[in-house]
Amino acid sequence: MQTLYRFQTADHIVAGRNSLQRVGEHLHLIGADVHKALILTQPSIQSLGFVDTLVGQLADKGVQADVSTSILPEPTIGNIEQVFAAMEGAAYDLVIGFGGGSVLDSAKILSVLSTNDSSVRDLLGTDLVKKPGLPTILIPTTSGTGAEVTPNAIVTLPEEELKIGIVSRYMLPKLVFLDPMLTLGLPKPITAATGMDAFTHSLESFISNKANPISDMFALESIRLISSSIVEAYRNGASVEAREKMLLGSMYGGMALTAAGTAAVHALAYPLGGKFKIAHGVANSMLLPHVMEFNMDAIADRLQQAAEPMGINTQGLTSSQAASKVVERIVEWTRLLEIPQDLRSFGVKLEDVPEMAVSASKVTRLLNNNPKELSLQDMEAIYRKLLS
Amino acid sequence: MQTLYRFQTADHIVAGRNSLQRVGEHLHLIGADVHKALILTQPSIQSLGFVDTLVGQLADKGVQADVSTSILPEPTIGNIEQVFAAMEGAAYDLVIGFGGGSVLDSAKILSVLSTNDSSVRDLLGTDLVKKPGLPTILIPTTSGTGAEVTPNAIVTLPEEELKIGIVSRYMLPKLVFLDPMLTLGLPKPITAATGMDAFTHSLESFISNKANPISDMFALESIRLISSSIVEAYRNGASVEAREKMLLGSMYGGMALTAAGTAAVHALAYPLGGKFKIAHGVANSMLLPHVMEFNMDAIADRLQQAAEPMGINTQGLTSSQAASKVVERIVEWTRLLEIPQDLRSFGVKLEDVPEMAVSASKVTRLLNNNPKELSLQDMEAIYRKLLS
Ligand SMILES: NC(=O)c1ccc[n+]([C@@H]2O[C@H](COP(=O)([O-])OP(=O)(O)OC[C@H]3O[C@@H](n4cnc5c(N)ncnc54)[C@H](O)[C@@H]3O)[C@@H](O)[C@H]2O)c1
Ligand SMILES: NC(=O)c1ccc[n+]([C@@H]2O[C@H](COP(=O)([O-])OP(=O)(O)OC[C@H]3O[C@@H](n4cnc5c(N)ncnc54)[C@H](O)[C@@H]3O)[C@@H](O)[C@H]2O)c1
Ligand SMILES: [Fe+2]
Ligand SMILES: [Fe+2]
Repeated sequence: MQTLYRFQTADHIVAGRNSLQRVGEHLHLIGADVHKALILTQPSIQSLGFVDTLVGQLADKGVQADVSTSILPEPTIGNIEQVFAAMEGAAYDLVIGFGGGSVLDSAKILSVLSTNDSSVRDLLGTDLVKKPGLPTILIPTTSGTGAEVTPNAIVTLPEEELKIGIVSRYMLPKLVFLDPMLTLGLPKPITAATGMDAFTHSLESFISNKANPISDMFALESIRLISSSIVEAYRNGASVEAREKMLLGSMYGGMALTAAGTAAVHALAYPLGGKFKIAHGVANSMLLPHVMEFNMDAIADRLQQAAEPMGINTQGLTSSQAASKVVERIVEWTRLLEIPQDLRSFGVKLEDVPEMAVSASKVTRLLNNNPKELSLQDMEAIYRKLLS
Repeated sequence: MQTLYRFQTADHIVAGRNSLQRVGEHLHLIGADVHKALILTQPSIQSLGFVDTLVGQLADKGVQADVSTSILPEPTIGNIEQVFAAMEGAAYDLVIGFGGGSVLDSAKILSVLSTNDSSVRDLLGTDLVKKPGLPTILIPTTSGTGAEVTPNAIVTLPEEELKIGIVSRYMLPKLVFLDPMLTLGLPKPITAATGMDAFTHSLESFISNKANPISDMFALESIRLISSSIVEAYRNGASVEAREKMLLGSMYGGMALTAAGTAAVHALAYPLGGKFKIAHGVANSMLLPHVMEFNMDAIADRLQQAAEPMGINTQGLTSSQAASKVVERIVEWTRLLEIPQDLRSFGVKLEDVPEMAVSASKVTRLLNNNPKELSLQDMEAIYRKLLS
């Protein structure tokens, strides 16, 4: 447990069913005059009609908006720089990210690229952004990365076959809309993978070396919300109640990770995304039970505390028995949510493991948060469990 | 339960034991160059040596600081305007509030007075501040008002014999330090009164018409922290653990009230503060059980939910039985904390009641949050209970 700790989040959060319909009336919360917005989104969101709703509301407030769907899932630096080049001369004074984590992270990066004389590569790392960016509005449509409330943005470096983070308080948005109605149509596999990503944020924050009272509160509440809704959201995607809990749980996960950081699960997931294009949430879900097993002797007490909000009855159990039940529940979810369990199905071979471990070992920003140190051998062993 | 809800808070919170010693290293989080600060504080804080610590750290970072102890407890408009007049020509670029709610609220108001061409009276109400103020750092020394994370500031209008609020997102601070060590010397009666104020924020937010999932999370966690530490903090003021829980609980109370608002307890307390100079926390503690009794039939379910975090065993009880236990516990606290119960000891007479009720009835901003409407007769009846 960290004794000195920090908390920061988005300036304003407007939440609730159909809050997308209320963007216009809350636009003044940006606190600056805006005239021209760039909306980054994805074709799936556009085809549902949500982008038109947003554009209409902006127009009513005198804000002209261009829409770009050029950001690809888990975008590369090249992809982001290409979109940035296309922004030139357009004089945007607002960037809106409207989609999953890929779009939200890109909106944050484009916002700071617009005001800092830097390339994306210059900004990779912590606190390398010099100046505040353009104001941003972030509207998540997955539940999710929690990226709408984190100072982080993750990009893919294709050459290095790795994903890497930019961390800067200047990437926190002015305004977030949290509307569960946007997530009703989220396809099953994306519901499963992004939902497990959100859960991973909270559980990793809860066991992080940097865990603290504020991150714990968000983490435990997130664990409670997600545990009570993830299977229902998967089976019955139209359940507004389950979707609402998932979206709130995902945002709290983002708040928890901002305050405490994720750890080895995320570090080990980066090479799987960077090299093998395994979706971020899928990679995390596959790794989560194995990394928790590895950490077990250091975190049994913490996992025991997570059991109650997960709805697990631990009466009469020792802490290590309760902790095992937590890991079992996670394994059960991955089965119920039909998340792949074998890295071979993504083209990973046993020979790739040493290089993957070397890659993961470089993610020290996150590995430092892990309650146990991982040697290269430890990392290889974990990857190999997903290849057996 | 509100379906559309908002959340906003301080930009950065740095928390933990001795975090006051770390102001210097976090100063950059203000995000602007600062050279000259005005520190508002109280003689009690100064005599403990804490102000010197702060001034020294600022000096190390090249920030010159003037110290003012001219703000009085529960300041009047006149008091604040007098301090503002004294600031003229000093070219401060940072205002630091270092004390209880009275000082924190004043720092917020002076910050926006410095950049807006308005008198304090112009700003009374909601969202009447036009422009962001000078950056502020808020360091609470009571647990407390939660004012370090709220967009509200309360002033006394001596002519109207009332207290009234300024509400503006521009009064949220850049940086908060939450250091329990500052509160170890808080005198018993202030520990009691400010602690009950914090509890009132959370319980009122939890039963507010504007309660929502985010405010509920903060409210319940605040209720849990305060319930487990308020009596200990009173009896054993040097308990760092109890003080730490109280300070965190008080901040969460501020977050809860920012998202959901307080209600009739606070509305009825204002005339007691404005006319009879009863300390804010004392007025709230006296009123809290009676207002909860009045609301009872509308809030039994909510009070039942508050019982568990208050450490009350409700097994086998109906919701109204559990709710009664909650009110009993509050009454027990006021006894253990030796909070006065009779308004007469403050010079209030039965004849004053009608005027007090009329005064309170004007605080519609808060009365609107109350789950039951209060007629003038209802308010008079509540005041009379404190005079019998
Ligand atoms: N910034 C952070 O703090 C943080 C945290 C975790 C992950 N991430 C990053 O976020 C990215 C992953 O984001 P993600 O998991 O949200 O996935 P994503 O944004 O890549 O989206 C996945 C797919 O879902 C589709 N989609 C999104 N919303 C939809 C909806 N409502 N209906 C139908 N289809 C929809 C998208 O079009 C896309 O094809 C990764 O790059 C990851 O590294 C960032
Ligand atoms: N802005 C908000 O959201 C909000 C919420 C609730 C109340 N308030 C307002 O805050 C004011 C009350 O603030 P408060 O209850 O913190 O009391 P306070 O600031 O008036 O302080 C009470 C007394 O305690 C002393 N004191 C403070 N810290 C001390 C310490 N560490 N050691 C020794 N003495 C100390 C002060 O000098 C003062 O004499 C009222 O005006 C109330 O209306 C504001
Ligand atoms: Fe993630
Ligand atoms: Fe109060």
